[in-house]
Amino acid sequence: MVAANKLASQITAGNRQALARAITLIESVRDDHRAQARDLLAHLLPDTRRSIRLGISGSPGVGKSTFIEAFGGHLTAHGHKVAVLAVDPSSTRGGGSILADKTRMETLSRDPNAFIRPSPSGRTAGGVARGTRDTIALVEAAGFDVVIVETVGVGQSETAAYDLVDMFILLLNPAGGDELQGIKRGIVELADLMVVTKADGALRSAATKTAAQYGGALGLLRPGKRDWKPEIVLTSAREQRGIEEVWRRIEAFRTSREQSGALVKRRAEQATTWMWRDVETGLIEHLKQDRKAAATARKLARDVAAGTLTPAAAAWEILAAHTSGEGSDRNS
Amino acid sequence: MVAANKLASQITAGNRQALARAITLIESVRDDHRAQARDLLAHLLPDTRRSIRLGISGSPGVGKSTFIEAFGGHLTAHGHKVAVLAVDPSSTRGGGSILADKTRMETLSRDPNAFIRPSPSGRTAGGVARGTRDTIALVEAAGFDVVIVETVGVGQSETAAYDLVDMFILLLNPAGGDELQGIKRGIVELADLMVVTKADGALRSAATKTAAQYGGALGLLRPGKRDWKPEIVLTSAREQRGIEEVWRRIEAFRTSREQSGALVKRRAEQATTWMWRDVETGLIEHLKQDRKAAATARKLARDVAAGTLTPAAAAWEILAAHTSGEGSDRNS
Repeated sequence: MVAANKLASQITAGNRQALARAITLIESVRDDHRAQARDLLAHLLPDTRRSIRLGISGSPGVGKSTFIEAFGGHLTAHGHKVAVLAVDPSSTRGGGSILADKTRMETLSRDPNAFIRPSPSGRTAGGVARGTRDTIALVEAAGFDVVIVETVGVGQSETAAYDLVDMFILLLNPAGGDELQGIKRGIVELADLMVVTKADGALRSAATKTAAQYGGALGLLRPGKRDWKPEIVLTSAREQRGIEEVWRRIEAFRTSREQSGALVKRRAEQATTWMWRDVETGLIEHLKQDRKAAATARKLARDVAAGTLTPAAAAWEILAAHTSGEGSDRNS
Repeated sequence: MVAANKLASQITAGNRQALARAITLIESVRDDHRAQARDLLAHLLPDTRRSIRLGISGSPGVGKSTFIEAFGGHLTAHGHKVAVLAVDPSSTRGGGSILADKTRMETLSRDPNAFIRPSPSGRTAGGVARGTRDTIALVEAAGFDVVIVETVGVGQSETAAYDLVDMFILLLNPAGGDELQGIKRGIVELADLMVVTKADGALRSAATKTAAQYGGALGLLRPGKRDWKPEIVLTSAREQRGIEEVWRRIEAFRTSREQSGALVKRRAEQATTWMWRDVETGLIEHLKQDRKAAATARKLARDVAAGTLTPAAAAWEILAAHTSGEGSDRNS
């Protein structure tokens, strides 16, 4: 085990192996690793004012990797350092996960100013998001100023990612109608920016039409932010069109949100929300490690689902079992 | 104090005073009232298979009261018993709340087969929703077979209400465009049924146009349920048009969801979710009543918001303060 302060200075010096080792620590579920990760993060608290955190989502097939590869390459060519972190609760170790295969973003993964990290696997959306939150702190400490949190468009991961980022970008397929329906409810309305992909060749006119349709749908939804109205940009990764425009929109978003003070305020709220979520998670874990309370919960959950016991009465009994068992009958 | 079993039999016998008294008990924050409420609910667990729980939402001015009055009247005329419960976390005691003024639904409030209950006030969305959840059990025990949970369309209350109901209905203003933008993000996508109001007289063609626009927008959103595709119905409370059609759509929804088993499954999931939410709330309340942990939380929340402490480290310290203070330094 490397001391936290040493690992911290390796990370801020730009040592990629140290960064990868630290992320592994953060993703671990072992208690000693988690203690080390907390210690490390306390040493690292980076100056995050330079960074922008972007959520990028879209259905499978929308061309997320291709877009991120083109977009990330554009940014590193302009002096930025880009980190791409995936949030995919559905991924399982060894296959199927997004970013498991780094050849997906072949050029970007070899770019010294880019860092690509696959999704941690085998966890809940909340667990994955928590790991990603701490990984954002690590990559920012390592000097990455554009942090992309990539999600798969399945719902839960987007809402989790939404609490991690400054701006949410939704990628849309160029062909409208039924083919578009892979987007989960509620996601469209989170978007600060929509990006229609593959707007080239035979799909170009379809892409223009799709942009107009979503523009109409957006008009029916109330904007979620006072200082920003969602916009739609047409892009082609193949022809490198629209990529710069996307970045201009992101910079306009950041300027607007910085001037209104909303950027700092939102990050403060996100951090406070995360603190209380961690407290809740800790309390629930503590309860689930309590043999008596856990057994009570398992038993009563069946009655609650069957409708023969109210949720309130069950909760009360579980809490009572937990309090009475405090410190005496604990599992380890 | 009336014994729980006596109060329970008064409620099932249809005694409205007993019902109102029981709801007051449920909405109380006093510990002894909450214990009594739990006891009462344990005596009441109704056969809820006959009931349908509907969430009805819409922006101020959409004509919610007028629609519910017409819809509820139609149902009681056809032998149903209708309960209308409001969820409005923004309401404050003494004014401004939805349903505070019963004259809003003058006819329905005098109907012996209808029961209207204003929103409990001065609480969080979660607290209001929890009270409403238990009130649903009470009115179902009292024989009401159509339970309407009315929300104000401000976002938080809808998502809370969504976890209480079988079906979510969104009311839309007949005039499209900017006037419609009072609907909060994410709400449109929760809707199982959309109802355009005031589709009469001069507004009729506007209403038809609005229905077409939303129909187009709906086509772009992936349906949230396998066995149901959201629909749009035009109504006029003044001309009593479309009201029966709304009920037919609700019955079709119920039939479809019953046959697929989704109705029972969803209710079981909702109940289990509520049980764990109550456990979490209980644990957090327990922690907040712990002087040492609460003081630590107040202090550290400032550092977390300022970005000088990570959420994880703060949470860990709060939990440590709580565990070390266990049973010794408790506030009452």
